[in-house]
Parts: sequence; structure tokens; C-alpha cells
Amino acid sequence: MGDSLHDRIAQSFAKQTMIQTLGATLVSAEPGCVVIEAPVGRAFLQQMGHAHAGFVFALGDATAGHAALSVVAPEVKVVTAEMKINYLAPANGDRLRATGRVIRPGRRLIVVTAEVHSLKDGTETLTALLQGSIVPIAP
Amino acid sequence: MGDSLHDRIAQSFAKQTMIQTLGATLVSAEPGCVVIEAPVGRAFLQQMGHAHAGFVFALGDATAGHAALSVVAPEVKVVTAEMKINYLAPANGDRLRATGRVIRPGRRLIVVTAEVHSLKDGTETLTALLQGSIVPIAP
Amino acid sequence: MGDSLHDRIAQSFAKQTMIQTLGATLVSAEPGCVVIEAPVGRAFLQQMGHAHAGFVFALGDATAGHAALSVVAPEVKVVTAEMKINYLAPANGDRLRATGRVIRPGRRLIVVTAEVHSLKDGTETLTALLQGSIVPIAP
Amino acid sequence: MGDSLHDRIAQSFAKQTMIQTLGATLVSAEPGCVVIEAPVGRAFLQQMGHAHAGFVFALGDATAGHAALSVVAPEVKVVTAEMKINYLAPANGDRLRATGRVIRPGRRLIVVTAEVHSLKDGTETLTALLQGSIVPIAP
Repeated sequence: MGDSLHDRIAQSFAKQTMIQTLGATLVSAEPGCVVIEAPVGRAFLQQMGHAHAGFVFALGDATAGHAALSVVAPEVKVVTAEMKINYLAPANGDRLRATGRVIRPGRRLIVVTAEVHSLKDGTETLTALLQGSIVPIAP
Repeated sequence: MGDSLHDRIAQSFAKQTMIQTLGATLVSAEPGCVVIEAPVGRAFLQQMGHAHAGFVFALGDATAGHAALSVVAPEVKVVTAEMKINYLAPANGDRLRATGRVIRPGRRLIVVTAEVHSLKDGTETLTALLQGSIVPIAP
Repeated sequence: MGDSLHDRIAQSFAKQTMIQTLGATLVSAEPGCVVIEAPVGRAFLQQMGHAHAGFVFALGDATAGHAALSVVAPEVKVVTAEMKINYLAPANGDRLRATGRVIRPGRRLIVVTAEVHSLKDGTETLTALLQGSIVPIAP
Repeated sequence: MGDSLHDRIAQSFAKQTMIQTLGATLVSAEPGCVVIEAPVGRAFLQQMGHAHAGFVFALGDATAGHAALSVVAPEVKVVTAEMKINYLAPANGDRLRATGRVIRPGRRLIVVTAEVHSLKDGTETLTALLQGSIVPIAP
């Protein structure tokens, strides 16, 4: 059961070239909570050498969307309707870890949150907070 | 004057490897309004083959941030404090064009909006709308 | 046609005691655009004597929701799914005017924006900008 | 210390006529966390007889703003820069309780979240989630 969920989320990741390009990998997948990590690659920086805001958002959004995917039936797809991000601290670590959670699994909209941490030298810093809505699309 | 602004915005782009990686180029830069475009590269897709939500956001955020940069003194830097995006239609075109505008150039916060259009076969579709706050940082 | 729309929006207002309490009145209603106004009553202020942030939001949200109502069939109801507001300037005028607009009338979600102006001595100041999603609910 | 914080927050409430009008009372105030409650008065309803979206927002925003106030020096004031709300369930209870928390107390911006619960017959339902930024203003 847990394994099949992990596989389903991993398969969704594998179909998204953006996720591959960013180097993100699935850390864990449970119903309503998905964690991913990515190295802060030199191709995805902003002008100060930190992870780009778009990179941070992409990880947070992906993990929120996949948390939503983890609570719908296998044949249902999901797309982000809207997402808001607050940046809390520079993403100046070596890696990013994003944790997405389902707050309310509605039929029309699945409300989600995500946190993105910047990891460096064994410490982690909360770098961004996301809150948004995912639309489940039945086949 | 216009040329020096264009150069300043272009230089900021050149310092951000994420912008280079995404293939974005500066179309125009006027005080309070910046336009960029990027091809929808095969490395930045979601599972249905459209431009990834994170790609769309990154362009919208970049153009909003640079619109803010266009209204501050040359020595001032800017960072995104928060940004909200509503996705309106699938980004299934060949190119994306993002237009960022300054709504209010405050001392503490510069409020901005951005539109992202999907371009295909001569038609353009509004695919995302952003609204957020940029922080100006004096040296 | 225009009159029946105006009546329908006005009837929706009349059913909401919050709108009556705030003293808001319908200025105009066209398909996709609704304008309301309210005096800045002494019962709705914040600590500096300006219109309270919740008051400003309530007007902006109401006008955005009714703009959405103006583009659905008469038997359909609407509720706000999510809304984001940026405050641009103190709401220190005598009256507030909110203008709501439909950006995209989707089947699942109607994406809307709203502007709230503060009116004083013949001048008007943009005091808040809203962007959000309204859910149409068929009977 | 705790008492003086409670008093300071209560005094800020007393200066805001909107808070008085809505009937909100301070339940608790600790550094970084403020809780308020209000009855769902008949003057603040939407068309289905539930608490109006603007009422729910006003409580959530007030509690978030006062959570921010609880972490700044006594002479500093705060104003909401931007706030986003997701509505999760109808606010059809007899009372509303809002809980605001500081996520990051920055110098320029204090990032906050808030939850609003609807209380009815001994049960409580999470009805709205807020995420936003508060600006501290030194005298």
C-alpha cells in the first residue's frame, strides 16, 4: 500500500521533465504528505548565488501537488489552480528539501501547504512557505 | 536613458543562471514594465507535456522582479518577498511571454503584477496571473 | 438585460447582512464587472482611524464575488475559494469604492481581481488590490 | 510579563472600532501566538446564513496582526502588507475562533499564518487558513 503510493508518486515525477531537470528526487510519500529533495545546482541560481526563487517555488509546488495526488483515486490527475509563496530566508544551502501537506481534501479543491528548507552543513533553515489549491481532475 | 535601463535589466538577467537555463530573453524594459520571452523547452514540461507550473511561475516572478528593479536607483537590489499565482489555462504553446508591471513603488515594498501568455501559431492565451511584493534593498 | 443583471446583483446584496451592516451600495453591474461603494463608518476603523483592513477586504471580496455572479446562469451560486489582498496605501478617505472584474470565467473556478479606492475631497487613491478564485455552485 | 503582553494586545484591540463592532474578544496572548473569539452575529452573515467571508477574514487578519505585534518592541506599530486566505468549509457555527502565529519575525516583514475555526455544539471545524506579511513600523 505505502509502496504502491510511493511508486505512483515516483511515476508522476518521472513523467515531468522539469522535475528531472531540477534534479529533484522523492524522499518519502505518505497519504497527505510528500517530501522531495534537490541539490542546489549551479544552473538554477539568482544573482547572489542562492537558489532562484523560481527553483524554490517549483519544488514547493511539486511537493504540494503530489501531496494532493496522494489522497485522490489512482485514475485522478491533479493540477495547481493557485499557489502563494512567502520567502522567509535566502536559500543559500547546498540542498533544498520541500515538504507538502494536504490540509483539506475537497472534491472540487484540495487545499495544501508546503515548506521549503535550505540544508547546509547539517543545519536546516525554513526558506519558504506555500499555501494553495489543487484541482482534482477525474478521467 | 531607455538604453541604460535596458542594459541594467539585461545585466541582472545575465547574472542569474536560472534565467539562462530557462532560455529567457529580455524583450523590452521601460520604467515600471518589463517583458521577457522563452521557448517552452522540452526540459521544462509537466506530465501532460505543457510548460511546468514552476517554469511559468519563474518567468512571471522574474519579470515582476525586474519591473521593480526598473523603478529603483541603480545601486538598489531587489528580492521577492511574496508572490501569488493563479493558473488560468494550460501553457500548451511553443513560447511563453511574461509581462511584469509595478503597481505601487513603495519604499518598503514594491507591489507588482505579472501576466504570462502562452504563444502558439500566432495566437496568445493568458495562462497565468501573478500579484506580489518585491523588497528593495539599498547597499 | 442590464437591468435584470443589476437587480440580480442587488438582490444578492440584500440577502447578506454583512453588506448591509457595512453600508455598501451597488454602483453598477455589467457582465464581468461590478462596482460598489460604502462610507467609511466610524464603527469599522483600525487604531489609526483609517478603514480597517477587514473592511477593505470585505468590500473587495464582495465586489469580486459579485463580478463572478454576473457571468454565471441565474440559478448558479458562487462562493469565494481563496483571495489574496495587497494593501497599497492607508484607507484614510471618507468613502471606499471597490471594483471587481472577472479575468477568466472557468467552469470550475472563476478567476477574479478587484481594486479598492479610497475617496477623499474629490481625489481617489488605490488602497488595495485583490486576486482570487470564486467557485460556481450549480443547484 | 505575560500580563503586560496581554494588556498591550487588549489595548490595541480596544482602539479598533471594527474589532468592537464584530464583537471579538481576546482569548490569549503569548509571544508569537494570539487567539481571539467572536460570536457569529446576525449582522455579519452572507446569503446562506453563514459567517460572511469578510468577517472570517477580519478575525484571521486581526489575530495574525496581533501575533506580529506580540513580537515587536512596545513602541512599534504594525500594519498588514498582504494576506491570503483559503476558505476550507462553511463557517456555519455559533462562534469563530482565530489563532494567529508568527512564522518568521523579520525586521522588514513579519511572516504570519492564522487559522479560523467555526465552533458549534462542542465541535470545531477549520474553516479558513491565512498566510501573509505584516510590516513593523518603528516610531
